[in-house]
Amino acid sequence: MEQVKANEKAITPRATDYSQWYLDIIAAADLSDYSPVKGCMVIKPYGYQLWERIQNVLDAKFKDIGVNNAYFPMLIPERLLTREKEHVEGFAPEVAVVTHAGGEKLEEPLVLRPTSETIIYEMYKDWIRSYRDLPLLINQWANVIRWEKRTRPFLRTTEFLWQEGHTVHATNAEADAFAKKMLDLYEGFLRDYMAIPVVKGMKSESEKFAGALYTYTCEAMMQDGKALQICTSHNLGDHFAKAFDIKFVDEQSSSQYAWQTSWGMSTRAIGGLIMTHSDDKGLVLPPNMATLKVVVVPIVNVDTKQSVEEKANEIASEMQKEFGVRGVHVDTRDMRPGEKYFEWEKKGVPIRLEIGPKDIANGQCVLVRRDTGEKIVTPLTDVVTNIQNTLKLIQDSLYNSALERQNSNTVEANTWDEFVSAIEDGKFVLAHYDGSAETEKLIKTETSATVRCIPFNEVASEGLCIKTGAPSKGRVIFAKNY
Amino acid sequence: MEQVKANEKAITPRATDYSQWYLDIIAAADLSDYSPVKGCMVIKPYGYQLWERIQNVLDAKFKDIGVNNAYFPMLIPERLLTREKEHVEGFAPEVAVVTHAGGEKLEEPLVLRPTSETIIYEMYKDWIRSYRDLPLLINQWANVIRWEKRTRPFLRTTEFLWQEGHTVHATNAEADAFAKKMLDLYEGFLRDYMAIPVVKGMKSESEKFAGALYTYTCEAMMQDGKALQICTSHNLGDHFAKAFDIKFVDEQSSSQYAWQTSWGMSTRAIGGLIMTHSDDKGLVLPPNMATLKVVVVPIVNVDTKQSVEEKANEIASEMQKEFGVRGVHVDTRDMRPGEKYFEWEKKGVPIRLEIGPKDIANGQCVLVRRDTGEKIVTPLTDVVTNIQNTLKLIQDSLYNSALERQNSNTVEANTWDEFVSAIEDGKFVLAHYDGSAETEKLIKTETSATVRCIPFNEVASEGLCIKTGAPSKGRVIFAKNY
Repeated sequence: MEQVKANEKAITPRATDYSQWYLDIIAAADLSDYSPVKGCMVIKPYGYQLWERIQNVLDAKFKDIGVNNAYFPMLIPERLLTREKEHVEGFAPEVAVVTHAGGEKLEEPLVLRPTSETIIYEMYKDWIRSYRDLPLLINQWANVIRWEKRTRPFLRTTEFLWQEGHTVHATNAEADAFAKKMLDLYEGFLRDYMAIPVVKGMKSESEKFAGALYTYTCEAMMQDGKALQICTSHNLGDHFAKAFDIKFVDEQSSSQYAWQTSWGMSTRAIGGLIMTHSDDKGLVLPPNMATLKVVVVPIVNVDTKQSVEEKANEIASEMQKEFGVRGVHVDTRDMRPGEKYFEWEKKGVPIRLEIGPKDIANGQCVLVRRDTGEKIVTPLTDVVTNIQNTLKLIQDSLYNSALERQNSNTVEANTWDEFVSAIEDGKFVLAHYDGSAETEKLIKTETSATVRCIPFNEVASEGLCIKTGAPSKGRVIFAKNY
Repeated sequence: MEQVKANEKAITPRATDYSQWYLDIIAAADLSDYSPVKGCMVIKPYGYQLWERIQNVLDAKFKDIGVNNAYFPMLIPERLLTREKEHVEGFAPEVAVVTHAGGEKLEEPLVLRPTSETIIYEMYKDWIRSYRDLPLLINQWANVIRWEKRTRPFLRTTEFLWQEGHTVHATNAEADAFAKKMLDLYEGFLRDYMAIPVVKGMKSESEKFAGALYTYTCEAMMQDGKALQICTSHNLGDHFAKAFDIKFVDEQSSSQYAWQTSWGMSTRAIGGLIMTHSDDKGLVLPPNMATLKVVVVPIVNVDTKQSVEEKANEIASEMQKEFGVRGVHVDTRDMRPGEKYFEWEKKGVPIRLEIGPKDIANGQCVLVRRDTGEKIVTPLTDVVTNIQNTLKLIQDSLYNSALERQNSNTVEANTWDEFVSAIEDGKFVLAHYDGSAETEKLIKTETSATVRCIPFNEVASEGLCIKTGAPSKGRVIFAKNY
């Protein structure tokens, strides 16, 4: 994995080296560390809090729509992985294999799950008998292993954490609707919590999940204009049902193959969060993702230390009633205030509250927004309300900035030259193409851009392929991607 | 793994075959299933709810005392595992090994974590510099793999889920106090939520964790008198600090080895929960562990179906305000009430609420306790309050029954004959022994009993070893165990 530099080091500006900036932000905010195992990262407590937030919010949303959690083995017998032809072709090159255990060579090698369709559907085939057992809606929170050649913290690691939902339905229409419903659920979460706008759409044949009928995706634009596939939801059709013999007896007593979906979001989303909002000073966290929302820095000297810290603790207690014990922290360390500001800025805490003896005398304090640096003088009587309002402003502002960036960097291209130049400028490019895998490959070779998705919100329109001039039925989004 | 019989099958009575009863309960309540991988189970949604409850409650308790979560890789380079001599001797025979990945043979085999001391402490050595970095209090929720010869659902499986806490301290005294504090935390959780009384104590030299200085344990008595080690907390001394070179600079600027603890609870605790409270009719859940606390069964015929179900739903909505949406379920399936009773009894739902047209006319309903079968006629106006009270009664009653059973089945033995006979009767036996590993082994060979712990609450007393007649300084608990 590319090396994160030490915590103390200055952050490389985005303009200088976006890729190094990303690694510097992670080190500066103490989000993760490198492990002795190639491509595997350690998620440190401040980074893991972000994953816990994702888990808590998504899990509640899943339960609200009737999805239950379960847990399936991480070891998959090799024969199961090979059951669905496209699936094994997609994943076999990336698997890690257990060949020995308990001091003996295993009769059959066991694969570490790169995803769990095969082991889960081997169970589903025994759990489903009749239409009364449907829909079956199950999710699991788990670690998965994919042997990646080039890795980067959060964005692409050999081991990562995720949730994977696996549902079974009586009809293809129902499965398709459910896959889209989950994509909407993800979009809502990304918008309301992570402040990340996305383009929803369908993957092209060559980019879809190995074994799926259709793959739906949320594509987000990073600050360098590159796309990040932040989560996906698959209509698996009856591909796995046929491979694993998942059948049910319908209301007319006839035996049918079932229809399935799977969908997931992973620790990769944290990489997207970092790259969407952070700046050259460090991490920037949307308030709805931050556990620690307010850090209180008392401005003191030897004489005022006790009285100011007392007042700061009193205000903090009041705020903790609203934002939780972990939502507010008073930094009373023996350091200069400036050093503290610098450190909490690097960690992306949404609001800094400064309070000194003069402020107390005036019955006020100063709120400083992490995103804009704006200072807001606030009467102590209104501090909780003003923080609530400011947190909301920050949340909305981060989303709106990201949306504006996405919109202003999404362009149409109608000629090959326009296309090449827009891709070089780091745009999302709406263009016609002939829909063939060959053309996609050719465009990728020449420009590094791939079809990110066929957007749901794009109106069908006749046109000519940017590359071959062959007819096209609608524009798709091309971009470089992570 | 021993096979669970199909869900429909009658439950083998405990008196007939305790071991089969356990498997039948798991099948009847739909808690888990067997997977195609030897010794690995699938935790089904109703069983996984129990794990989620354990996670949520323990996680909040950990955070309250300043423990933060993180995540470390599940793959451990073999060379790290071998660093601490006793540790590798204990775990090497049980590990599964990845030898190939990404289509190639690995240069160094990677072990699937059987526990994470080695990979975590390899990181800690870089994270700790000064006394200011201490104490370091980190926990992770993870899956682990131990290649077991004989497995049983929940109690002993090749892959299991757990939390493992790993802390670092400046002194041995602080580490020891922290290890004991965590044991108290576990005891409180087991008592207040799982309604499981335990004996706290220290493990003997031969039963302690591989690499620990001392292992502290919570031992619970199952209904057959056998002991279950339900969780442990280890004072690791400076054993791992020396093996991994974890040092800090103290306040006097001198470099010191650090002192460490680790502590864990796993899905094994669910096995203990099942075996502590369940009966010949099925699972029995303490209300504080049950997600679904009340199932409402409307008693209807064709004419009354609509009006009774309407009333049942109305009552359920009222109850859901108190017990959550998932805490109350109205069973309106087209089945005879008796079938429904039978099914919810098997699943251990604490309270069944029966309501029919006559009840409605009389402004009442009937509450049925799962643990005792007692029927309580309740005015509809008091239903929420009466359910709250009844849930509390059930919770207390389950704990008290288990405690009484433990107390009445704990005996002293002062001769070898008394000892053998008490062990055969399935007792916890308080006896003197000479403290040597040889004597422990001899006693195990002859009676299958092992030292479960040197109990904290046992007053020191001089005596003679039950087996060798050599002097002893206090009684320990012997029992057969899971």
